[in-house]
Amino acid sequence: CIVRESKQLQKHRRHTLTILILKAQIKSVELYLAATDNEYLLRQEELRLRYILSEDDDMPTPTLFTEMDTLQREGDELEWKESARWVKFEEKVEEGGERWSKPHVSTLSLHSLFELRTCLQTGTVLLDLEGYSLPQIIDDIIERQIEEGMISPDLREKISFVLLRKHRHQTKKPIHRSLADIGKSSSSTSECHAQSRSMNDIADAPSTDQLKNKFMKKIPRDAEASNVLVGEVDFLNRPFVAFVRLAQATTLGGLTEVPVPTRFLFILLGPQGKAKSYNEIGRAIATLMVDDLFSDVAYKARDREDLIAGIDEFLDEVIVLPPGEWDPKIRIEPPKKVPSADKRKSVFSLNELGQMNGTAGGGGGLAEDEEMPEHHELGEELAFTGRFCGGLYLDIKRKLPWLPSDFYEGFHIQSISAVLFIYLGCITNAITFGGLLGDATDNYQGVMESFLGTALAGSVFCLFSGQPLIILSSTGPILIFEKLLYDFSKNNSIDYMELRLWIGIHSCLQCFILVATDASYIIRYMTRFTEEGFSSLISFIFISDAIKKLIASFKYYPINTNFKPDYVTTYKCECLAPDPSEFIPWTERRLNWPNYVPLNVTALDWSQLSKGECLKYGGSLVGNSCKYVPDLALMSFILFFGTYSMTVTLKKFKFSRYFPTKLRKLISDFSIFMSIMTFVGLDMLVGLKTPKLIVPTEFKPTRPDRGWLVMPIGKNPWWVCLASFAPALLVTILIFMDQQISAVIVNRKENKLKKGCGYHLDLFWVGVLMAVCSFIGLPWYVAATVISIAHIDSLKMESESSAPGEQPQFLGVREQRMTGILVFVLTGVSIFLAPVLKFIPMPVLYGVFLYMGVASLSGIQFWDRIKLYMMPSKHQPDFSYLRHVPLRRVHLFTLIQITCLAVLWILKSTFLAIIFPVMILGLMVVRKMLDMVFSQHDLAWLDDLLPEKEKKKKDDDKKKGKEREKKPKPDDSEEEVRNMSFCCPLQEQ
Amino acid sequence: CIVRESKQLQKHRRHTLTILILKAQIKSVELYLAATDNEYLLRQEELRLRYILSEDDDMPTPTLFTEMDTLQREGDELEWKESARWVKFEEKVEEGGERWSKPHVSTLSLHSLFELRTCLQTGTVLLDLEGYSLPQIIDDIIERQIEEGMISPDLREKISFVLLRKHRHQTKKPIHRSLADIGKSSSSTSECHAQSRSMNDIADAPSTDQLKNKFMKKIPRDAEASNVLVGEVDFLNRPFVAFVRLAQATTLGGLTEVPVPTRFLFILLGPQGKAKSYNEIGRAIATLMVDDLFSDVAYKARDREDLIAGIDEFLDEVIVLPPGEWDPKIRIEPPKKVPSADKRKSVFSLNELGQMNGTAGGGGGLAEDEEMPEHHELGEELAFTGRFCGGLYLDIKRKLPWLPSDFYEGFHIQSISAVLFIYLGCITNAITFGGLLGDATDNYQGVMESFLGTALAGSVFCLFSGQPLIILSSTGPILIFEKLLYDFSKNNSIDYMELRLWIGIHSCLQCFILVATDASYIIRYMTRFTEEGFSSLISFIFISDAIKKLIASFKYYPINTNFKPDYVTTYKCECLAPDPSEFIPWTERRLNWPNYVPLNVTALDWSQLSKGECLKYGGSLVGNSCKYVPDLALMSFILFFGTYSMTVTLKKFKFSRYFPTKLRKLISDFSIFMSIMTFVGLDMLVGLKTPKLIVPTEFKPTRPDRGWLVMPIGKNPWWVCLASFAPALLVTILIFMDQQISAVIVNRKENKLKKGCGYHLDLFWVGVLMAVCSFIGLPWYVAATVISIAHIDSLKMESESSAPGEQPQFLGVREQRMTGILVFVLTGVSIFLAPVLKFIPMPVLYGVFLYMGVASLSGIQFWDRIKLYMMPSKHQPDFSYLRHVPLRRVHLFTLIQITCLAVLWILKSTFLAIIFPVMILGLMVVRKMLDMVFSQHDLAWLDDLLPEKEKKKKDDDKKKGKEREKKPKPDDSEEEVRNMSFCCPLQEQ
Repeated sequence: CIVRESKQLQKHRRHTLTILILKAQIKSVELYLAATDNEYLLRQEELRLRYILSEDDDMPTPTLFTEMDTLQREGDELEWKESARWVKFEEKVEEGGERWSKPHVSTLSLHSLFELRTCLQTGTVLLDLEGYSLPQIIDDIIERQIEEGMISPDLREKISFVLLRKHRHQTKKPIHRSLADIGKSSSSTSECHAQSRSMNDIADAPSTDQLKNKFMKKIPRDAEASNVLVGEVDFLNRPFVAFVRLAQATTLGGLTEVPVPTRFLFILLGPQGKAKSYNEIGRAIATLMVDDLFSDVAYKARDREDLIAGIDEFLDEVIVLPPGEWDPKIRIEPPKKVPSADKRKSVFSLNELGQMNGTAGGGGGLAEDEEMPEHHELGEELAFTGRFCGGLYLDIKRKLPWLPSDFYEGFHIQSISAVLFIYLGCITNAITFGGLLGDATDNYQGVMESFLGTALAGSVFCLFSGQPLIILSSTGPILIFEKLLYDFSKNNSIDYMELRLWIGIHSCLQCFILVATDASYIIRYMTRFTEEGFSSLISFIFISDAIKKLIASFKYYPINTNFKPDYVTTYKCECLAPDPSEFIPWTERRLNWPNYVPLNVTALDWSQLSKGECLKYGGSLVGNSCKYVPDLALMSFILFFGTYSMTVTLKKFKFSRYFPTKLRKLISDFSIFMSIMTFVGLDMLVGLKTPKLIVPTEFKPTRPDRGWLVMPIGKNPWWVCLASFAPALLVTILIFMDQQISAVIVNRKENKLKKGCGYHLDLFWVGVLMAVCSFIGLPWYVAATVISIAHIDSLKMESESSAPGEQPQFLGVREQRMTGILVFVLTGVSIFLAPVLKFIPMPVLYGVFLYMGVASLSGIQFWDRIKLYMMPSKHQPDFSYLRHVPLRRVHLFTLIQITCLAVLWILKSTFLAIIFPVMILGLMVVRKMLDMVFSQHDLAWLDDLLPEKEKKKKDDDKKKGKEREKKPKPDDSEEEVRNMSFCCPLQEQ
Repeated sequence: CIVRESKQLQKHRRHTLTILILKAQIKSVELYLAATDNEYLLRQEELRLRYILSEDDDMPTPTLFTEMDTLQREGDELEWKESARWVKFEEKVEEGGERWSKPHVSTLSLHSLFELRTCLQTGTVLLDLEGYSLPQIIDDIIERQIEEGMISPDLREKISFVLLRKHRHQTKKPIHRSLADIGKSSSSTSECHAQSRSMNDIADAPSTDQLKNKFMKKIPRDAEASNVLVGEVDFLNRPFVAFVRLAQATTLGGLTEVPVPTRFLFILLGPQGKAKSYNEIGRAIATLMVDDLFSDVAYKARDREDLIAGIDEFLDEVIVLPPGEWDPKIRIEPPKKVPSADKRKSVFSLNELGQMNGTAGGGGGLAEDEEMPEHHELGEELAFTGRFCGGLYLDIKRKLPWLPSDFYEGFHIQSISAVLFIYLGCITNAITFGGLLGDATDNYQGVMESFLGTALAGSVFCLFSGQPLIILSSTGPILIFEKLLYDFSKNNSIDYMELRLWIGIHSCLQCFILVATDASYIIRYMTRFTEEGFSSLISFIFISDAIKKLIASFKYYPINTNFKPDYVTTYKCECLAPDPSEFIPWTERRLNWPNYVPLNVTALDWSQLSKGECLKYGGSLVGNSCKYVPDLALMSFILFFGTYSMTVTLKKFKFSRYFPTKLRKLISDFSIFMSIMTFVGLDMLVGLKTPKLIVPTEFKPTRPDRGWLVMPIGKNPWWVCLASFAPALLVTILIFMDQQISAVIVNRKENKLKKGCGYHLDLFWVGVLMAVCSFIGLPWYVAATVISIAHIDSLKMESESSAPGEQPQFLGVREQRMTGILVFVLTGVSIFLAPVLKFIPMPVLYGVFLYMGVASLSGIQFWDRIKLYMMPSKHQPDFSYLRHVPLRRVHLFTLIQITCLAVLWILKSTFLAIIFPVMILGLMVVRKMLDMVFSQHDLAWLDDLLPEKEKKKKDDDKKKGKEREKKPKPDDSEEEVRNMSFCCPLQEQ
C-alpha cells in the first residue's frame, strides 16, 4: 500500500501543478485587496457603483419578486418545479412536506457566491433585451451563445426544449397527475427532437392558478419578477449561463407563480452530477436580486462589469458566521429590523466626505461607536413664544387641519374595543369617585353628578382639546381638596357650593393666565425621571386601590371560618324584639331615619324581619351566623383574579402560534371585553349575590335639596368671592401639574404621535370646564394618567407585514376624537343602561383596574431597571443603556428613583396628599440635583438632558465639528451632492 | 466644475491603473477557484489540511481560551485593555457599561477575514518558538522582523516598549486610578525612550486578581490561552504583524485574564487611524483560534502556508448572511446545538469516498437531503433469546453491575424534591384508590390495605426490579376487576378473599411462564403510535379525574346561590324529632348501625343535635340552609387552581431571567412542594374546614372481621382453585400490557437512560408481588404511567454549561433506586405521619394530579400534532417531520389517532374498562393497518417502522448501497481510514 500511496502523492503533485496553471490563466481576477499598508486603496468596484447609483436616483427601482425553479424529471417528463421564492426573505418549498417553509434569512455559502461571480464573468449577459415571449428570449440567448462560440449550434434545440418545459408552482395541487397528463407524457418523451417551438409547454397567458394566487397581496403593486432557472442536463459538458434584463418587464406566461411581469432572468444549465451546487448558485443570485442595493445595480448596470462590481459590494458588506459557532441548518428567523440599504448606498455618494473628516479626529473608528441616544425632543409645542396667547394660537393652528381626519379616522374595528375598554374604566372610576365624593360632601356631589360631569367634561374636552387621546376623570388630589373644603365650609357655616363656584371661577381665570403666558413652557424641565416617577406612582395607586377593594370585600362579607358542616343545625341568626324598657333611645333613632314610617312595633312578627328591618326597628340580632356572609368574599376573589389573569393571558395571545394573525389580533384587542363577559357570565351562572355595578337611574341631583344650577352670590359674605382666590391658586397648581404631566406622558416620543399636541389648548379647556362644572355643581376634572395610557395602548397600530417574514412595525396610534367622544356619550347614556350594567359584578371591574395599573407599568424604563436588581448581569436584557452606563450607576439611579417614590407614597398617605401634584416639582428639583451625581453622558442614556445642558452640549458639538457644518444636509439638492463627491480629493495622502 | 470633474476622472483612471499594477504584483494569490467547468478542481488547501489533520489524530488538541487586548491611551499612559474574550463564543467588554456582554456568535466581516489572511501572508510567523517570558518572545519577534528587513532597527525599542505595557483586565475595578498610579504615569510619558527592559510593565507571575478570577471554572482544565494584541501607534507607517506559537504553553505573567498558560500570540500594531479595522482583524483571528478545526491546524501547522490553508478552509465553510436581510448590530445568541467539527474534519479523510458514491446515484445532492429519522431501537433487551429464562438472565446480568451505583447516585439534592413530589402523588393515589376499593369490596380492601400494599409492593419492586424508575400503583382496570369479582363472589356465595388468592397465585404462575418464554418480545411491535395513544389516554384520565373531583366538591358542598345577606335571619336548619308513629322502621335502621348505643330517644334535646346525630336518631332536618355548605366549594376551587397554576408558573421559572441559575433550578425542582406548602399555608390561614387528607392511624385491616393472612383453602369448594385459572388469565393479560407499556414509555429513547431496562425482571417481580399481596389480602399493583413519567421528569439531569453561552444539554435521568425506595418507605411510615398530613387539603392534591396529567402530555409528539390543527401553517414550529411529510398526511395520521383514543375513551367508560389494557392490542392492530394507508417514508417520520418492515428496509438499503458497506465504521482503526483515503481515485473523470 505504501507504493500505492506514493503513486497517489505523485498524482497529487500533478494536480497541484494543473491548479497553478489554471490560476495563471484566470486573467480577469478581481481581488479583495486588503489594505495591508497605510495607503488608502480605492476600489474599482466602488468607482463603478458610484457612477451607477448616482445616475437617476429620482426613479426608484421596483421591488423584485424572485422565484427559483429547478429542473426535475417526473417520470419520463422534464419539468421546472418551483423550489424557493423571495420577496425579502427566502421561502423554500419543503420537498417532502409539499409546502412553504417559514420565511427565513437566506444563509449562503461563500463558495456559491464566488461561483456565481464566475458564472456572471463567463456566461452571457444580455442587458435591455427586447423580449415579448419566453421562446423568443431563449432563442436570443442561444443565438448569442452560438455567436460567441460558447455552445455548438447542434445543442440549440435541446437547450431550447429543456428551457421551454412546463413550470409547476407550489400553488398547484401536487403530483397525482390526471390521466390526460399521462397520455400526453407518453406521446412526448424527453428524448424527442421535434421543433422546439411546437414543444413549448408554456402558455402565453397566465393561468387561472396564477391569477387566483393569494400570495399576490404580499407583493407590492409595482413589483417585477426575476426568475432563476437552474438544472442539470445530460447533453452539456460545460455550464450554460445567461443573465438577461428585459427592456420592458413582460409577463411570460406560466413562468412565474404570480402574474407579475418578469424583468430579470437567470439561467444556469450544467452537466449532470452537481445539482446541489447549481441550486446554491441559484439561491445566491436570487438573494442578490432581492438585495436593495444589488437590485439597484442590476436595474442600472451598463455592462457585465457593473454586475460584478455589485456582487463585490455585496460580498464586502456580507456578515460572516463562523462554521463552528453556528449550524447552517438552522433557519434564521427574520430580524425585527433590518438595516436600511440607504446607508450602504450613501457610502457611494458621500464616502470621501466622511473620509476627509475621519482622520481629522484621530480617534479612529471610536467616534462611531460612541453613539449617543436620541435627544428628548419636546418640539416646538412647548417653545416659549413671548407673545400673548402665542402658544394657544400655535396649538389651534397646528390642530385645526387635522380636525376632519380626527373624525373619519375613528371608523375602525379597533375603536370599538377601545371604546368598550375605556368606557368600562370610566364608569368604574365615575362610580368609585362618585361614591367617595358623596361620602366626603354629604351627597352634594354624588354618583349622579359624577356620571354627568364625566360625560360633559370628557366629551367637550375630546371635541375641542389639543390632545383628544387624553381622558379626563376625577383624580385623588381633587377628591381630597373637596373633602377639606367641605369640612371647612361646614365648620365655618359658609355655603359650600357657592364657595366652590368662586374657587372654580378664580381657578379658571388663573388657568387662562397660564395659557396666555405660555406657562406650559416649564414642562420642558420634566424629564423621563419625573415622568416615569409620576406615572409609576399613579400605577401603584391603581394597583393598591384594586387590591384594597378586594380586601374590603373580605371585610364586608366575613367568612365564618369555624363553620362545621355537621353542625349546620346550630347556626342561626334571629331577630329579637327590643326590650320595651329601652324604648327611649328608639325615638332618638327616628331622627336618623328620615323616611321612617311609624309602625306599631309590638305588633311586628320579629322573626320574619330581615336583618335591615330588624335593626331599623331597633331589634337586636342574636346568633352565631349573623355577622357572616357565605361565599361572596371567595366569589369576589375568584372574579377579581379570574378577570385579571384572563385579560393578561388573552393580551399575550397575540404572540401565540395558534389561529391566523387577524383572529389573534382581534382576541388580543378585545381581551378585556372578553374577560369581562366571561366572568359576568360565570357570575350569572353561579347566581351569587355579588356586589354589582349600580348606576343611578333617575336624572336628578343626588341631594334632593340642591338644584342643577349654583348661584354665584347670595348665601356667602361678599369677601368670600375674593378670598377664594387663595385656595383657587392651590387648585390651579394641582390641575396644571396633573394635566400637563399626563399630557407629557401621552405625548411621549415612543407613542409616535403624528398630529402634534396642544398643551396650551388643553389647559384652556380644562379651565373652561372648571368654571362650567362649578356652575352646575359637578366635580372638577383633569387628565387621568392610567386611563389615558390605556386609551393609547388600545389604539396602537402596527403595520400589516408586507413581505413574508417581515416583522410588523409599530406605526403609531389611531389619533382621533371619535373614541373619546363615544366613551363619554356612552357614560352619559349609562343612566339608561342601568338594566344591562347591573349584571356586572364590581370585583370584575376591580380586576380590570388591576390590569390597567399593571399594564401601564410595563414599558416604563424605570420598571425595567427595577427588574434588573433581581437579574444576574449575564441574564440581563441587552438594553442600550446597559451597554453604555456601568451597572452600578444604573442601580444607583434606580435606587434614587425608588427612594423618591417611597417618600411620595408616604406623603400621599398623609393629609399632604392634597399637594401631591405639587410634589412633582420636588421630583424636578431632585432631577436637577442629579446633574451633580451623574455625568451628562450617563444621564443622556438613563434620562434626558435638561434643556440648558442640552443646549450647552449642542454648542460644544458645534465648536468641535465646525467643518462638518459644511456637509450638505440630506435634503439638499442632489446635484450639489454629486458635485461635492467629485470635487473632493480621493485620497488623503 | 465640468473641468474639475474631468480632471477627477483622469485621476480616477490613474488610480485604476495603480490598482491593476498592484494586482499584478500580488503573486502569492490564493483564489477561490470556482468550479466553472465540469472538471473537479481539487484545492491545494485541502491537500495541505489532509496532511496536517491526519497526522497525530490520537493527541487531542487542548481547548483554547482567547483574549483580545487593545492598546488604549489612558491619560498620558499607554496600556493594553482587554476588549473581548472567547471560550467558544465571544464576550465583549461593554466599554461604557464596564462589563461583559452576553456570550454571542462572533459575526465577522468578510473584509476582516481577507485582511487577516494578508496579515498572515506578509507578517512574521514563528512556529514552535522557545519562549519563557514575554520580553524574550517580543525580542525574538522584533529580531526576526529586522532580519527580514520588515522594520528598521531603530523601531525596536519603541515597539518593545508598547508591547510591554501593562494589561488591564475586565476583572479589575475600573478606572479611578489611585494617586500612586498618577505619580507613576507622570514620571513615564509615552514618549519615553528609555530601555524597553526597564519599561516592562508586566509582572512575571500572575497577580492575585488573575488567580482569584472566578471565570476560571468556565475554562476546561487542560485549556491553553491564545492572546491577541492589536493597537495603533504613531511611529509605524506599515503594520507590524506577528503570529507566534510557543513550543511549550507558558504563563506569561499578567498577560491573560486567567492563569492559563499561553500557547499562541497574535500581534498587530499598525499606523494610526484604522483602529476599528485592526479591531476587526483581531476579532477575526480570535474567532479562528476558537474554531475547532482551525485550532487543530494552528497546533499542527508546519509553516505559514498551512495557516493560510486553515483560513481558506474556514472561509469555505463560513455561513454568509446577506447584508440586506440581517442587521450586523444584532448579537446572535448561541444556538442550542452547534455542528461538531468532526464532520468538517472527516471531509479531509473521507472526502473522495463520498465523492465516489455521490455521482453513482445520479440524483446529485438530493440523496443527502433525504435524511431519514433515526431508527426506533428497543435494543437487545427485547431480543427473543429462544432459551428458557434467557431474557430474565440477561436482564439480571445487565442490571447487577449497576446495583451499587443505584444507591450512591441517589444522594443528590434533586432526589429530595423528587421524593416529596412522588410521595405526595403516591399517597393521594393510595387514598383515592383505597377509598374506591373499600366501596367496591365492602372494606375487604380499604385505605389501610392500600397504604400497606403500596409501601410493600413499591419498595420491593424498587429494590429488585429491572427498571427502578417505574412506580407501582393501583390502576383503574384492576379496580374494576376487583369490583366485578366481589359482586360475583357475593352473588354466588363464594369467599371473595380465598377466590382472589387463587387468582393471584394462578396469575403469578402465568407471569412466570411469560417471563420464562421471553414473551415481552411482543413489545417490539409497540410503536410510537401505540405508546403515545396509551399514555395520552392515561393522562386524559388523570386530568378528567382531577376535574371530576373538583366538580364533586361543588356537589358535596352545595352553594346557596339564593343567599341574600340582608335576609340572614331567615336562614336556619333545625332538627325535628321524628313522629312517634314512625318508630317501627327505626328498629330496622338499627341493623345498619352496628355500633349503635341505645338511647332514650324521647329524652333527647333535638335542637342541640348535630346534623349527623339528628339523622342517626331518625330526626328530620327542616330549614332552608340544611342542604347548603358555605365557602368550602369555592375555597376548594381556589386551592385546586391555585396549586396547579403556581406549580406551572414555578416550573417555568427556570427559563426566566431573574435570580442566578442555581436558585432558579432549585425553585423549579421544588415547584410542586412549594405550591403545596403555599396553599396548605393559605388554607390554614383562612381556617376553613376544607376536606383534608386523612390517613389511617391504626395498623389493622379496615374490615374488623378479617385477619392479615388469607388461607388458601377451607371456605370454597376445591374446584374453585382450578377454575380461577380463567379469570387469572384476564388479570395476567391486563397486568402484562399495563406493566410493559408503561415500561416502554419510561424506557423511551428520549429519556437517554444509560443503565438499560429489564422487562422480564420487572414482570417477574410484578408476578411475585401479585402472589404475596393476594396472601396478605392487599390490592394488586402494576406500573403507573403518569406517576412514573413524573418520577423521571423530576430526576432529569442537565449539563452545567461549560463555555459561556453554551446551552445546557439534557444528559439523562438520575437512574437509581433510592428515590423510589424512600417514597415507599415514607408511604409506609405515613400511618405515623397522620398528624402532619392531616393539614393537607385534598383540593391541593387534586391540583397536583391535574399538573401531573398535563405535564405528562407535554413532550408527546401526538399532542404537538393535535396543536398543529389550530395553527396556520406559517406559524407552525419547524418539526422535522413537517419538512418531510405533507401536512395533510400528518393531519390524517393525527385524526386516526384521535379517533382511536375517542373509541378507547368510550369503551373505558363502559363495563369494558376491564379489558382496557387488552385494547392496546387493538391499537397495535390499527397501527399494522396503517401500513396500508401511509407510505413507509411517512411512517418512519411520524411513527416508527414495525420490526419486519424495518428489517426489509435495511435489506433494501444493503442491496442498494452495497459498495457503501465497505465504508469503514467510525470506530474502525483509523489506520485503515487513512489508507482508504489515499487508495481511492482523486477525480472521477
